[in-house]
Amino acid sequence: MKRHDRIMREEALQKANVLVEALPWINEWRGETVVVKYGGSAMENEELMAGVVADIEMLKLMGMRVVLVHGGGKAINRLLSQLDIPVRFKDGLRVTDDATMEAVQEVLIGKVNQQLVWALNEYGNNAVGISGADGKTFKCEPVSADLGRVGRIRKVNCELVEAVLDAGYIPVVASVGCGPDGFYNVNADVAASETAKALKAHKLVYLTDVDGLLADVDDEDSLVTQVTRSETHQLLESGTLSSGMIPKVTAIASALDAGVEQVHILNGTYPHSILLEIFTDAGIGTMFTQD
Amino acid sequence: MKRHDRIMREEALQKANVLVEALPWINEWRGETVVVKYGGSAMENEELMAGVVADIEMLKLMGMRVVLVHGGGKAINRLLSQLDIPVRFKDGLRVTDDATMEAVQEVLIGKVNQQLVWALNEYGNNAVGISGADGKTFKCEPVSADLGRVGRIRKVNCELVEAVLDAGYIPVVASVGCGPDGFYNVNADVAASETAKALKAHKLVYLTDVDGLLADVDDEDSLVTQVTRSETHQLLESGTLSSGMIPKVTAIASALDAGVEQVHILNGTYPHSILLEIFTDAGIGTMFTQD
Amino acid sequence: MKRHDRIMREEALQKANVLVEALPWINEWRGETVVVKYGGSAMENEELMAGVVADIEMLKLMGMRVVLVHGGGKAINRLLSQLDIPVRFKDGLRVTDDATMEAVQEVLIGKVNQQLVWALNEYGNNAVGISGADGKTFKCEPVSADLGRVGRIRKVNCELVEAVLDAGYIPVVASVGCGPDGFYNVNADVAASETAKALKAHKLVYLTDVDGLLADVDDEDSLVTQVTRSETHQLLESGTLSSGMIPKVTAIASALDAGVEQVHILNGTYPHSILLEIFTDAGIGTMFTQD
Amino acid sequence: MKRHDRIMREEALQKANVLVEALPWINEWRGETVVVKYGGSAMENEELMAGVVADIEMLKLMGMRVVLVHGGGKAINRLLSQLDIPVRFKDGLRVTDDATMEAVQEVLIGKVNQQLVWALNEYGNNAVGISGADGKTFKCEPVSADLGRVGRIRKVNCELVEAVLDAGYIPVVASVGCGPDGFYNVNADVAASETAKALKAHKLVYLTDVDGLLADVDDEDSLVTQVTRSETHQLLESGTLSSGMIPKVTAIASALDAGVEQVHILNGTYPHSILLEIFTDAGIGTMFTQD
Amino acid sequence: MKRHDRIMREEALQKANVLVEALPWINEWRGETVVVKYGGSAMENEELMAGVVADIEMLKLMGMRVVLVHGGGKAINRLLSQLDIPVRFKDGLRVTDDATMEAVQEVLIGKVNQQLVWALNEYGNNAVGISGADGKTFKCEPVSADLGRVGRIRKVNCELVEAVLDAGYIPVVASVGCGPDGFYNVNADVAASETAKALKAHKLVYLTDVDGLLADVDDEDSLVTQVTRSETHQLLESGTLSSGMIPKVTAIASALDAGVEQVHILNGTYPHSILLEIFTDAGIGTMFTQD
Amino acid sequence: MKRHDRIMREEALQKANVLVEALPWINEWRGETVVVKYGGSAMENEELMAGVVADIEMLKLMGMRVVLVHGGGKAINRLLSQLDIPVRFKDGLRVTDDATMEAVQEVLIGKVNQQLVWALNEYGNNAVGISGADGKTFKCEPVSADLGRVGRIRKVNCELVEAVLDAGYIPVVASVGCGPDGFYNVNADVAASETAKALKAHKLVYLTDVDGLLADVDDEDSLVTQVTRSETHQLLESGTLSSGMIPKVTAIASALDAGVEQVHILNGTYPHSILLEIFTDAGIGTMFTQD
Repeated sequence: MKRHDRIMREEALQKANVLVEALPWINEWRGETVVVKYGGSAMENEELMAGVVADIEMLKLMGMRVVLVHGGGKAINRLLSQLDIPVRFKDGLRVTDDATMEAVQEVLIGKVNQQLVWALNEYGNNAVGISGADGKTFKCEPVSADLGRVGRIRKVNCELVEAVLDAGYIPVVASVGCGPDGFYNVNADVAASETAKALKAHKLVYLTDVDGLLADVDDEDSLVTQVTRSETHQLLESGTLSSGMIPKVTAIASALDAGVEQVHILNGTYPHSILLEIFTDAGIGTMFTQD
Repeated sequence: MKRHDRIMREEALQKANVLVEALPWINEWRGETVVVKYGGSAMENEELMAGVVADIEMLKLMGMRVVLVHGGGKAINRLLSQLDIPVRFKDGLRVTDDATMEAVQEVLIGKVNQQLVWALNEYGNNAVGISGADGKTFKCEPVSADLGRVGRIRKVNCELVEAVLDAGYIPVVASVGCGPDGFYNVNADVAASETAKALKAHKLVYLTDVDGLLADVDDEDSLVTQVTRSETHQLLESGTLSSGMIPKVTAIASALDAGVEQVHILNGTYPHSILLEIFTDAGIGTMFTQD
Repeated sequence: MKRHDRIMREEALQKANVLVEALPWINEWRGETVVVKYGGSAMENEELMAGVVADIEMLKLMGMRVVLVHGGGKAINRLLSQLDIPVRFKDGLRVTDDATMEAVQEVLIGKVNQQLVWALNEYGNNAVGISGADGKTFKCEPVSADLGRVGRIRKVNCELVEAVLDAGYIPVVASVGCGPDGFYNVNADVAASETAKALKAHKLVYLTDVDGLLADVDDEDSLVTQVTRSETHQLLESGTLSSGMIPKVTAIASALDAGVEQVHILNGTYPHSILLEIFTDAGIGTMFTQD
Repeated sequence: MKRHDRIMREEALQKANVLVEALPWINEWRGETVVVKYGGSAMENEELMAGVVADIEMLKLMGMRVVLVHGGGKAINRLLSQLDIPVRFKDGLRVTDDATMEAVQEVLIGKVNQQLVWALNEYGNNAVGISGADGKTFKCEPVSADLGRVGRIRKVNCELVEAVLDAGYIPVVASVGCGPDGFYNVNADVAASETAKALKAHKLVYLTDVDGLLADVDDEDSLVTQVTRSETHQLLESGTLSSGMIPKVTAIASALDAGVEQVHILNGTYPHSILLEIFTDAGIGTMFTQD
Repeated sequence: MKRHDRIMREEALQKANVLVEALPWINEWRGETVVVKYGGSAMENEELMAGVVADIEMLKLMGMRVVLVHGGGKAINRLLSQLDIPVRFKDGLRVTDDATMEAVQEVLIGKVNQQLVWALNEYGNNAVGISGADGKTFKCEPVSADLGRVGRIRKVNCELVEAVLDAGYIPVVASVGCGPDGFYNVNADVAASETAKALKAHKLVYLTDVDGLLADVDDEDSLVTQVTRSETHQLLESGTLSSGMIPKVTAIASALDAGVEQVHILNGTYPHSILLEIFTDAGIGTMFTQD
Repeated sequence: MKRHDRIMREEALQKANVLVEALPWINEWRGETVVVKYGGSAMENEELMAGVVADIEMLKLMGMRVVLVHGGGKAINRLLSQLDIPVRFKDGLRVTDDATMEAVQEVLIGKVNQQLVWALNEYGNNAVGISGADGKTFKCEPVSADLGRVGRIRKVNCELVEAVLDAGYIPVVASVGCGPDGFYNVNADVAASETAKALKAHKLVYLTDVDGLLADVDDEDSLVTQVTRSETHQLLESGTLSSGMIPKVTAIASALDAGVEQVHILNGTYPHSILLEIFTDAGIGTMFTQD
């Protein structure tokens, strides 16, 4: 064997070693359902998206049942601005009149969702876009009269998502719901949590722009690596959470209460956060667990 | 029994008689696959849409496998105009640059498709929106460099549509496809024909704004009620078809050649055209058949 | 379109409207099991039978699991008279010696049952005759020594009926049972009720010669339209029921107690009573419901 | 061990040896379909019937798919005589007017068939009576205007028989068929042969009153033990067959031509003829084989 | 028929009668799971083995799910002696160092097991050898440090045995187990009992060299024919059992406690003991039953 | 994040990248059947075996259907020497008398096979040992009278291997076969090739002690990296192959002729050869392909 070949083989060998090291994790996770909420900056950058999509695909090939749930606030704002529709928020929620709702649908279902489907399909005929109206997946009611078409999920009909998983696809679910009088705009963090609960998922992963939960909001090094279910409830009651974290942690607590084993907040702007979390023992992000 | 009750029962009885008269047709069509292309004015009017949707639902409940394929030219134009994107056509085809394509996706997948899904779901959790990118259902290639993202369907992967039918849903397919470099805008008449061919459908129905094929374009009473496959090819070769009919009749000929038994052009603006065609012997529209 | 065509289409359109009006009911009843007891004059008249059979077929095509249970007292009497076998009744029950039992079998299984199978098969290869001895469907014991081969159903083995339903047929069950020492003559009203109980049917329909339960036996206009389960038991205890109604209402109470949701007494001599009851809101007959 | 016990065990041991000797045959016949035509005196005698039924049950328990086909000429004659309906034959076929046909149905389906079902059910919930009208199993056309309701089988729909076999029952098929205008009386030998052909049976057994085919009709010792398919056709052409044998041998030739491997004529009045034929090497009856 | 033929048929007929007599037992045992522990002298003699194997095969053909579990002490001793490895016992258990364990594996899995597989395969492609390490069927832990690789079964993973049964084979299980540090030698009586418990078997049969349990160890005529579960426990507590019987009866009590219906001790050196026990009413051996 | 954590994450990230790079290969190989022949020094060294076993497990987790076939010449020799049985070869084949055959069984089935099963089970309850006698997987006939129990495979019954694969296990097949008169010793290279043919495998891999096929036997750098099917046949006819390679290349040609797509000779003493071959583009060993 020549020197060049030796080096190439050496490298290949290191790669093979990595695959073999992943064996115990692959074994452990085979057949489990994982819901991944995807959003924030990680979705705005093409290279980051490529990485996330590769991770999702890897989970599928490892035999996991993966469901992707996404929102798309920034993309919605862009279309609204192009259409000269004013953007209004109230208590952190987008006031959604009919024109806004139409734009939300167009962006989330027609554009963002399809972009994710397209990226996943690079690896086969793998992904299927689903809106919460398809198969009445997310049945909603209005949150309040003031907010217009902002919806609260009353019921998740997960038959369609299950059928699509069983047929071997990755469901990519847009955070839009439907009610007796039309479409509703639903919070994607909550949509992910409700989906995980309905599917009795093992794991729920939030890909965000931050490293996880910080003990001290102003100190990046104060990352909390593990929180139990009872501690999660204490956190919510303590009033110490940043206002941005409250809805997410509420959704997390609800998922834990319903039996989801583990919920993660990971920084989706770091490459391969999901794979690192699942297939290595690099402790990253914050993991919420049952007590 | 009182007089009022007698009258009510009399009416109910007539209704029961209608149901019973439909029995032989129901029996005949049970289990068959029917692809319905839906478009034109029939889709712009809410009441008409309600009628079409009820018909589609009825076919499903009668045990048929129904697939709805739709375009949405007028709705696309509206959004393009709102976004100040110029509308350009060449040889009857929409010149589709990237910005136009994004708007096409947003309208067809995010809005028109979801509207149909929502209307069908009035009768249960029945419908599922599918874009040609989901499961790579429509694999496309560009028609010509001049036309940008106008695509020709190279292959229909009908596994997803089949899976969704098997799971008991009505697939509602938007005429958008995907290629190696992104999304493509495909002709909905052709998309319907290609879907019918891939599914080995028994029947393909075009819901349009006209009564059918006219022998003399200027004479509304010259409706041709039945055309065989060889006559269809002769029509295409004869040069007598109106330019608007040529692509549709070409798609029809292709479906007949591939074994679809019957293709219909019906006027979707008449209420319940589909039910009339399938469950009564009122001869309506133009029927294309095998020789 | 010519005037004649306009009228024809108008009529066809009314028919289509009727089909569409039935949609919500079809949706509601899909997949439910319905047991229909068929007997009395409605079975003696060919035209009436044609109507009942069309209704049954319609229920099947609407996706319901229909089971027909029948007796045939008048036809039995005719054969007994031809064979010079005396007809004897005691407490309303036919005293059944061995020769009578043989005639009962011959008429019910060989003739009446097959006539119903034949009529249903007009609409396909749909129906299968079943006697209570086939697959030991009705296991019986003698009611009393005096009555000879009059049997009480001890157990319904519904595996055969289920297998036949699953294979897509309508089971037509003759009210004959079997015991350790041969065949038994069983009351068809009870056979229907026991079958409904064993199949956990949603609905049990008695097609009779009367309009339903009358509050005052002598006043045809005193039809009771709805009776709850507890009221049914009160009726039985009250002693006000006509002697002819007692066994039927006892069978009905037993079905309700076992969880059958609705039991109906309908006049089978009115055309399409079953369809009217299920697919319209014409209130006909008497409906017994859970409390 | 005491002497009495020794003797008992000795006997038991011989029995066990018999079971073990049957092993190779059981192995060979597992899963094969066998159609048994049952008729003649063997069906008139209760003890003989018990033996035949035990044999049929044994075949089923050995894992074979057994179908019993029967006629019942003598029983029909008895009922006709009781009803004062004249019995008429023409060319060996029963002239069958409507009254006769009704009696044929009553006897074959209501009585003979049910007797066989009842006897088989002694061993479990095993048997299901089927008439040729059930599931339109035997579709018939009239043989000739003179003969009335004597039918020729045009088509065997074997889906019902298959469904009943798959559900673990023994189908007991009465030789009655149906046509567009009602019921038909069909020859049971032909019904058995047609059923065997439709089911692609491995073996077809005719249980008769004779030992098999005799080379010389007047010499009981001239039994022919084996006949090939080509010899069967030669026999039919030779004109040497007794008139009673011609229809049976014609049916046999037709079964062999359609691929049934072996057809047997056995004497059903000898106990356990079927078991002897299948599970021992006692050469009995006449076996017709492929060339 | 000639005299010689008459005699042959007479014999054949007696055989058919035996088959028919077995019908009720076959019916009763169809589909039940039976675990047979095979060992002792019955396994050392080729003719006896042929008989046992035929019995096992017969049970399978009768539709029972049979599992054979075996040890092979004598064969192990022979190989150990050939290899000059000393044989040592302590408290009736073989002290098993690594070299001994290797020999145990070689003999039990490589030789004894394969001999049984081979003999069963005489009747088809029927048998599959399984060691307790295959599919980690027997997960073990060491009994005590002194005994080396003598293992106690902690858990039976019966998925592999079930899969092999479902695929139509007879699993032949060698009494070898596996633990975290390699292979273990397990008592075959216990292995059979644990397998029966894990499979929720109906019957467990011990084929031994003795007639059964004796009330008085020194009196061969004191055979106890039936023992209830509570009596079994009393026997174990009474201290009257021979030391050789204690482990077997302990295993039996454990099986009964876990719900196995019947456990038998039979003398495997008598021909066809298993068939006699199951298919005749010759009372042989000792039967342990639930109370 | 602290420096130490940064480094750890950096490493983890590289690992994730490796997993992601493997995606296209995993996708390509999913669901394919691969037969691996394992033998030579790679099987004698515990560390090497651990590597091979990890590779096999990885293939399984990637969704491939892996079958391991092995021999074990050196281990056989050791036992023969311990038992003082002389080792004799003739034309490269082991002369196999009955005593030798017994030792072959004991070593291959009882020891080597179980060692592989045990090692694979480290990763779950994954592996099942199978001998060619189990389910008559390898039906053999003697090669020649001189060689005793050396067998040629006449037929592979792959139902058992398929059943075990379908149940989710890795079949580990010992190269022992069976014939009408007992066990046979079969060449493991041929056994692997015949198994691959019977399973219609996509790939067959020979793990050996050499780097592959050398153009010049004396020059290690003359490795031939790719050989087509026709070249393989030319090689066999050319007479230039070393005598040790002839049987292996004959088996390879036979596999290619039967439609196996790719056959590899890899050096099993290099770590992870199989993974390198399948999941990287490091060209190693010799690959035989269809023309």
